[in-house]
Amino acid sequence: MLQIAKEGTSCYLPNLVAVVTSQYEGEENMMAASWYSQVSAHPLRFGVAISKERYTYSLVKQSGAFAINFLPYSHSHWIKISGTISKRDQDKLTSQSIDLISGEKTGVPILAQSFLAYECRVHQMIPCGDHDWFVGDIITTYWQPDCFNEYGSVNLNHLHYPLHLGGFHFLNLKQVNQLKSD
Amino acid sequence: MLQIAKEGTSCYLPNLVAVVTSQYEGEENMMAASWYSQVSAHPLRFGVAISKERYTYSLVKQSGAFAINFLPYSHSHWIKISGTISKRDQDKLTSQSIDLISGEKTGVPILAQSFLAYECRVHQMIPCGDHDWFVGDIITTYWQPDCFNEYGSVNLNHLHYPLHLGGFHFLNLKQVNQLKSD
Repeated sequence: MLQIAKEGTSCYLPNLVAVVTSQYEGEENMMAASWYSQVSAHPLRFGVAISKERYTYSLVKQSGAFAINFLPYSHSHWIKISGTISKRDQDKLTSQSIDLISGEKTGVPILAQSFLAYECRVHQMIPCGDHDWFVGDIITTYWQPDCFNEYGSVNLNHLHYPLHLGGFHFLNLKQVNQLKSD
Repeated sequence: MLQIAKEGTSCYLPNLVAVVTSQYEGEENMMAASWYSQVSAHPLRFGVAISKERYTYSLVKQSGAFAINFLPYSHSHWIKISGTISKRDQDKLTSQSIDLISGEKTGVPILAQSFLAYECRVHQMIPCGDHDWFVGDIITTYWQPDCFNEYGSVNLNHLHYPLHLGGFHFLNLKQVNQLKSD
C-alpha cells in the first residue's frame, strides 16, 4: 500500500556503480558514482553528479575531461575502494596496481579492466545542490565487444555484471541469467 | 580486451525503468524513462531526461511538476506501454484502468501500484542535446515501506524488482535473490 514517507526520505535502488576517472597535470584519481545518466543520443552526452568535496571534482573542473568506467563483477572490490577511500588518504590507482590506458583524445585514464568506458569532454557543469551535474560529450567509447549483443544491450551469457544492491553487496547477474523472463 | 568502438556507439545497461507522470489543466500522461538520476541529497533533487518530442514534455514544462514512479515486476507491462505508445495515439492511463492518487502538493498523478514514487517540482530545465534534463525538488516521497530495509535499500525478500535488460525483457530480481553474494 503506497503511503507518504517521512520528509527527506530517499531510497537506494539496485544499480551498476560507475567509476569516474580523471587527471590534471599528471595527477590521477578514481571515484565511485551511483548518480549518473545518459542525457542525449544526438549528440551523445552523459551526465554524472560529483560533490564539490570530492578530490575528483577539481581534477575534472580543471582538466575539462572525465571518463565513466564500468567494471565486471570480478573487479567489484575496486568499485568498493573507489567509494570508500579518498585520494587524500591513499592513491587508489597505484595502491591497487590498476592497469590504465590513456584516453585517446584527452589523456584521461581509462580502467583497462572495464567492459565499457566513455571518454568525455565536459560540456556543462550545473550546480544542483550538494553535487554539481557534469554533462560531458562522449568523444570515444571503449568496450569489450563480446560483452554486448547486436542491439548494444549487455550479453549476460558472457558478462559478469555487478549489480550493486546497497552497502557492500553486489549481485553477479551472469549467474542468475538463466532465470531471465519477459 | 578493451578496444575503441565505432564512433557513436552507446550501450544499454540493465536498469530499473521509471515511469514519469505529469498533468496540466486536467490532461494527464505517463511515459517510460531510462535516463534519470538523483542529483542532490541536501536538498533532495532528482533529474530526468525528456525529449522535446514527447507529449509529456509540454505537460511538465507548463505545469512545473512531474512524478517519478517505480513499478514492481507484476506491472512491467505498464512500463512497456509507457515506452511504446504515445498519448497522441491512445490515453494510456484510462485505457489501462490505472489507479492514480493525486500528489499532495502539486496534484500530479502518482501510480498507486508503485513501490516508490517521488513528487517533484521543477527546479531547472537544462537543454542537453536531443533531450532536456529536468531537475526537480523531491517534495514528497511515496513508498510501500515493506519494500525497503532500514537503510533505505530495496528489500528483495519482499519486492519483485523488474530489472530491464533491453527490448521487452525484464528480470524479476526477487526470484534471484537467493544468489546474492558480496
